[in-house]
Amino acid sequence: MEGYIALAAGLAIGLGSLGPGIGQGIAAKGALEGMARQPEAAGDIRVSMILALAFMEALTIYGLLIAFMLIGKIA
Amino acid sequence: MEGYIALAAGLAIGLGSLGPGIGQGIAAKGALEGMARQPEAAGDIRVSMILALAFMEALTIYGLLIAFMLIGKIA
Amino acid sequence: MEGYIALAAGLAIGLGSLGPGIGQGIAAKGALEGMARQPEAAGDIRVSMILALAFMEALTIYGLLIAFMLIGKIA
Amino acid sequence: MEGYIALAAGLAIGLGSLGPGIGQGIAAKGALEGMARQPEAAGDIRVSMILALAFMEALTIYGLLIAFMLIGKIA
Amino acid sequence: MEGYIALAAGLAIGLGSLGPGIGQGIAAKGALEGMARQPEAAGDIRVSMILALAFMEALTIYGLLIAFMLIGKIA
Amino acid sequence: MEGYIALAAGLAIGLGSLGPGIGQGIAAKGALEGMARQPEAAGDIRVSMILALAFMEALTIYGLLIAFMLIGKIA
Amino acid sequence: MEGYIALAAGLAIGLGSLGPGIGQGIAAKGALEGMARQPEAAGDIRVSMILALAFMEALTIYGLLIAFMLIGKIA
Amino acid sequence: MEGYIALAAGLAIGLGSLGPGIGQGIAAKGALEGMARQPEAAGDIRVSMILALAFMEALTIYGLLIAFMLIGKIA
Amino acid sequence: MEGYIALAAGLAIGLGSLGPGIGQGIAAKGALEGMARQPEAAGDIRVSMILALAFMEALTIYGLLIAFMLIGKIA
Amino acid sequence: MEGYIALAAGLAIGLGSLGPGIGQGIAAKGALEGMARQPEAAGDIRVSMILALAFMEALTIYGLLIAFMLIGKIA
Amino acid sequence: MEGYIALAAGLAIGLGSLGPGIGQGIAAKGALEGMARQPEAAGDIRVSMILALAFMEALTIYGLLIAFMLIGKIA
Amino acid sequence: MEGYIALAAGLAIGLGSLGPGIGQGIAAKGALEGMARQPEAAGDIRVSMILALAFMEALTIYGLLIAFMLIGKIA
Amino acid sequence: MEGYIALAAGLAIGLGSLGPGIGQGIAAKGALEGMARQPEAAGDIRVSMILALAFMEALTIYGLLIAFMLIGKIA
Amino acid sequence: MEGYIALAAGLAIGLGSLGPGIGQGIAAKGALEGMARQPEAAGDIRVSMILALAFMEALTIYGLLIAFMLIGKIA
Repeated sequence: MEGYIALAAGLAIGLGSLGPGIGQGIAAKGALEGMARQPEAAGDIRVSMILALAFMEALTIYGLLIAFMLIGKIA
Repeated sequence: MEGYIALAAGLAIGLGSLGPGIGQGIAAKGALEGMARQPEAAGDIRVSMILALAFMEALTIYGLLIAFMLIGKIA
Repeated sequence: MEGYIALAAGLAIGLGSLGPGIGQGIAAKGALEGMARQPEAAGDIRVSMILALAFMEALTIYGLLIAFMLIGKIA
Repeated sequence: MEGYIALAAGLAIGLGSLGPGIGQGIAAKGALEGMARQPEAAGDIRVSMILALAFMEALTIYGLLIAFMLIGKIA
Repeated sequence: MEGYIALAAGLAIGLGSLGPGIGQGIAAKGALEGMARQPEAAGDIRVSMILALAFMEALTIYGLLIAFMLIGKIA
Repeated sequence: MEGYIALAAGLAIGLGSLGPGIGQGIAAKGALEGMARQPEAAGDIRVSMILALAFMEALTIYGLLIAFMLIGKIA
Repeated sequence: MEGYIALAAGLAIGLGSLGPGIGQGIAAKGALEGMARQPEAAGDIRVSMILALAFMEALTIYGLLIAFMLIGKIA
Repeated sequence: MEGYIALAAGLAIGLGSLGPGIGQGIAAKGALEGMARQPEAAGDIRVSMILALAFMEALTIYGLLIAFMLIGKIA
Repeated sequence: MEGYIALAAGLAIGLGSLGPGIGQGIAAKGALEGMARQPEAAGDIRVSMILALAFMEALTIYGLLIAFMLIGKIA
Repeated sequence: MEGYIALAAGLAIGLGSLGPGIGQGIAAKGALEGMARQPEAAGDIRVSMILALAFMEALTIYGLLIAFMLIGKIA
Repeated sequence: MEGYIALAAGLAIGLGSLGPGIGQGIAAKGALEGMARQPEAAGDIRVSMILALAFMEALTIYGLLIAFMLIGKIA
Repeated sequence: MEGYIALAAGLAIGLGSLGPGIGQGIAAKGALEGMARQPEAAGDIRVSMILALAFMEALTIYGLLIAFMLIGKIA
Repeated sequence: MEGYIALAAGLAIGLGSLGPGIGQGIAAKGALEGMARQPEAAGDIRVSMILALAFMEALTIYGLLIAFMLIGKIA
Repeated sequence: MEGYIALAAGLAIGLGSLGPGIGQGIAAKGALEGMARQPEAAGDIRVSMILALAFMEALTIYGLLIAFMLIGKIA
């Protein structure tokens, strides 16, 4: 049984960074290209970019939370 | 049996952040590029972006909810 | 048997947020870019965006409903 | 046996929202961009968008129907 | 045996809405963008769009039909 | 054995609507965009669109035929 | 053994319509867009489109043929 | 053993039409768009299109050949 | 054992036509569009297209060769 | 059991670098193209790029953390 | 054991033509479009195209080599 | 058990180079195209490119680290 | 055991030509299009193309090396 | 057990060349197109291209290293 719980923890964090990882890249690309096109709006764009990246970071952190809880069941 | 429940929790949160993660990235890209093109509309776009990101965040939170309920069945 | 029911609940909500998550991102991108191009139509676009996001949110909520019903069968 | 029926219900609704979820996003993007380009045609476009989204919503509702029928076989 | 029949019903409707769901989204996008570009042709385009969506809806209804027939074999 | 035959029927119609569903969407998009660009050729394009959709519909009907034949073997 | 033969028939026609279905959609899109751009060449394009669709239809008919032969082995 | 041979025949023709089906669609799209752009070269393009489609048709016919040989081993 | 050899033959030709099939379509599209753009270079392009298609045809023929050798081991 | 725990560690870090790896590439592409378009904003863009890359790096580091914890359970 | 060796041979050549097949198509498309754009450089481009196709052909020939060696182990 | 640990090591490094490999290619493409567009900024771009590539290289090195630790458990 | 070693050799060379095959095609396309756009730089581009193709060829040769070593373990 | 170790070695190098192979192709395409656009910067671009290709080559070499270590455990 513990093997499956470990596998579940591995998949929770392994799969859980796939979507947000790609998403953060797409969002950051938009922000960085926007800064190059409008350097005077760079500050405003950077704040919004960090806000968006934080939303996506949270998705993986939920996976990390579940992985921790599952590992706590192994010992 | 508990191994499968743990696996279900891992998949619920692991797969459950895949779509919203990519989606948030696409939405944020649109917003950040829009801010660079129309800096004076940045406030309005940012509010709408947060609204859209919250809709997508909710999708993963449903998965988190199911994962918590499943973990509660393991002990 | 209960392990498979749990797995079904995990897949219902895990897979069930994949399509709507990506779809909401695509829709929101269209709306946010449109707001940047036509700031005076922003209110109208935002209402339509929320309408469209709600349609997609519903798809995942169906999955959540099935997941709840399945979890109710485990105990 | 009941485990497989539950798995079938989970896949029916989990997979069944994948295509319509992405499709609704693509359709809504077209509508929202169209509204930004032709604000005076917004009412007409919104009606057609809702019509198209309803067609896609129906596809997932068929999956929901099958999932309900399958869950009814478990008890 | 009945578990496999249920799984078959779940896959018939789950997979069966994947292609038409994406396809309807692509078709609707074309129609909605066309309406925004040629508002005076909107009525003509809408009729053709409904016609095309109905063709795709039929593909999933075939899957629904098979799923009903399979569920009828379970009891 | 009957479980595998049912699974075969489910896959025949489930997979069998995937390609034609996406294909019909792509074809319909081309037709609907064409109608918006050349409204006076709309009648001619619609006839050709229906012809093309019928070719694709036939592909799924072959799958439906095989699914019916397989279900006939179960009873 | 017969279960595997049925599965083979289901895959032959299920997978066998995937490529041609997408391909026919791509080909038809090219034809329908071409008709909209050159309405006076519509007759010529439609004949070539039907020719190309027939080539692709044949690919699935090969799969149908194999599926019939396999089903003939079940009884 | 015969079940695996049947499965092999099904995969040979099922997978074997996937690539050529998509490929023929891409090739035909190029030809049909070319005819619309240069109607006076239509005859020349159609001959080359048929030539290319025949190359791709041959790829699936190899799969059909193997499938026939495998089915001949079942009886 | 013979079932696995048959499966190997089916995969060799089934998978083996996937890449070349898509590749030939991409190559032919380039050639056919080129002919429409430069009708006076059509003869030169067609010779090069046949050369390229032959390279790709060879890849599938290697798969066919292996499939024949494997089938020869079954009897 | 220890084999599954090792597999979980391998998947946690193997899958866990997939999304962030692609995402960092997309983000860096946006930054590097932006620097080429606006060399005078290069410093500002580079700082934001490092910030974004650090967000994505963190996602994989969560996976690394889980992998370490899982390996600690093997001995 | 011999079944697995045969399966290995089938996968070596089946998978081994997938990448080079798609790659040759992409390369040939570039060459054929280039010839249409610069007919006077056609000879130079064709030589380079054959060189590139040969590099890719070699990749599949490595797979063929391994497949032959594996079939030689079946006896 | 040792077989699974080896498999875990293989997957950790095999999957672990997939995302960063694609990502480095995308990042390098952006840098190399930028250098061609702005040769005088080449030095600045190259430094940033190496920085970005190093971030991605690190992701695979984490996988390598886990693979080494796992191999150390086999002996 | 020898069956798995053979399978490993088949996967090493089968999967190992997938990425480089696609990559060489993309690289060659860039080179061949570049030659058509700048015929006087053709010699320089061809040398660089061969250099790049050799890098990618090496990746598959590593796979071939491992496949040879594994086959050497079978006898 | 040794079969799984061999499989791990095969996957390490087979999967391990997938990402870098595609990545090197993308990077080389950018370099070769850049050389065609700016022939006088060709030397500078080529040096950077080799640098980038070496980074990606390293990723596969890590996989090769693990594969060698795993093969050393078989004998």
